[in-house]
Amino acid sequence: MTTPPAVGARIWAIAEGYLPTWSRGPEPEMASHETACMLNTSASDAHVRITIYFSDRDPIGPFRVTVPAQRTLHLRFDDLRDPATIPRGVDFASLIESDRPIVVQHTRLDSRQEANALLTTIGYAQ
Amino acid sequence: MTTPPAVGARIWAIAEGYLPTWSRGPEPEMASHETACMLNTSASDAHVRITIYFSDRDPIGPFRVTVPAQRTLHLRFDDLRDPATIPRGVDFASLIESDRPIVVQHTRLDSRQEANALLTTIGYAQ
Amino acid sequence: MTTPPAVGARIWAIAEGYLPTWSRGPEPEMASHETACMLNTSASDAHVRITIYFSDRDPIGPFRVTVPAQRTLHLRFDDLRDPATIPRGVDFASLIESDRPIVVQHTRLDSRQEANALLTTIGYAQ
Amino acid sequence: MTTPPAVGARIWAIAEGYLPTWSRGPEPEMASHETACMLNTSASDAHVRITIYFSDRDPIGPFRVTVPAQRTLHLRFDDLRDPATIPRGVDFASLIESDRPIVVQHTRLDSRQEANALLTTIGYAQ
Repeated sequence: MTTPPAVGARIWAIAEGYLPTWSRGPEPEMASHETACMLNTSASDAHVRITIYFSDRDPIGPFRVTVPAQRTLHLRFDDLRDPATIPRGVDFASLIESDRPIVVQHTRLDSRQEANALLTTIGYAQ
Repeated sequence: MTTPPAVGARIWAIAEGYLPTWSRGPEPEMASHETACMLNTSASDAHVRITIYFSDRDPIGPFRVTVPAQRTLHLRFDDLRDPATIPRGVDFASLIESDRPIVVQHTRLDSRQEANALLTTIGYAQ
Repeated sequence: MTTPPAVGARIWAIAEGYLPTWSRGPEPEMASHETACMLNTSASDAHVRITIYFSDRDPIGPFRVTVPAQRTLHLRFDDLRDPATIPRGVDFASLIESDRPIVVQHTRLDSRQEANALLTTIGYAQ
Repeated sequence: MTTPPAVGARIWAIAEGYLPTWSRGPEPEMASHETACMLNTSASDAHVRITIYFSDRDPIGPFRVTVPAQRTLHLRFDDLRDPATIPRGVDFASLIESDRPIVVQHTRLDSRQEANALLTTIGYAQ
């Protein structure tokens, strides 16, 4: 197959973020999670810096991840460990900067009640 | 860490808004709410004016909030008090104007039935 | 208050549409519905033409609605009657053309099962 | 009626994709599904190539579909068969390339628990 074009933008923002403090679904698939889905269609790895913003304290970061060439990375925010972890039960937002064009979509599975709730939206690209 | 760039737009619109008249989840985390999530990555405070539109009456506002530099504000519409409160059970829409670039995402948690429902979308940026 | 600027675009598309064939919530608030939320912040009425597309038959329309100056209209697709009604249980999509800039957001409440499900997204603006 | 303008873009990306491994709703309407809703308002058929990306293996495709002139196609990803099927329980993302402008919206119905969950977002257009 022919190589698809590099698609996306280098700066993305997600204004909404929240890690619930509990969940009820069977682990691990149905546990509550908050995810940044990143797609890199280019032929080169994308090196990504993530900064997390809060309402009442200084931002933390940068967290560094790589989205390999022609791969997608569905990154769970609660998997971030370095340089810090994101506290639960607290509003946050995120800024995602990449050295290659990528596409970013934000998704949450919330399993705090009997049934799941899902939300998703495309990020803000600049 | 280096300061991230100012990201976003100065004018945002959310065409959908609704404050349910009742909810069933445990208070306050699971009570129904409608939120405008705003992110200000810039090094200066963002001064924001919000105007609320209805289907059958004149708009109300401006409501004024500040999103501090390098902070996020997840504003619940039912917390707005000045110059008015938003009636429940009524369709509305909102216009958000800022003197600095910000990013706006709209989220609702609806807990009127046994399980939560969630929705979110990026606002319309101009 | 000062008059806010006219915000939005004149052409919008929503690629997803579906009217469920049944619902379980208490009428009318919790009945399943599919809505195009339109916001007109301008000082003049917006005259809107809606065309509905299907997978297996010719499009129908135009449906004509007015979004008054400085008002929002949350239009339920199952309220459209002229020149036709939209069949239930069938995939559709919609094109929304306005003579003034407006903002369009698509929302569905699905109450076919014990709990509601909600979805929303900003439309595609051109 | 007059012919509406061709609306949309030729390159779309959806960074989030997931086919659940089980579902509980009545078949076929309430079975879990993941859909790319495509709208072609133009007067000519749109020939579409879809490439699917994964986190840990090479992309597959192109899958080829046609969205006829003035029609919408709500394509279920689990209906794709040629040149491969998309595995269940695995994160994926998709790139959608068309020779005509189209509009793409991503929707999932998740019926793994007692109540449905829905998500949708406009794709990323380039």
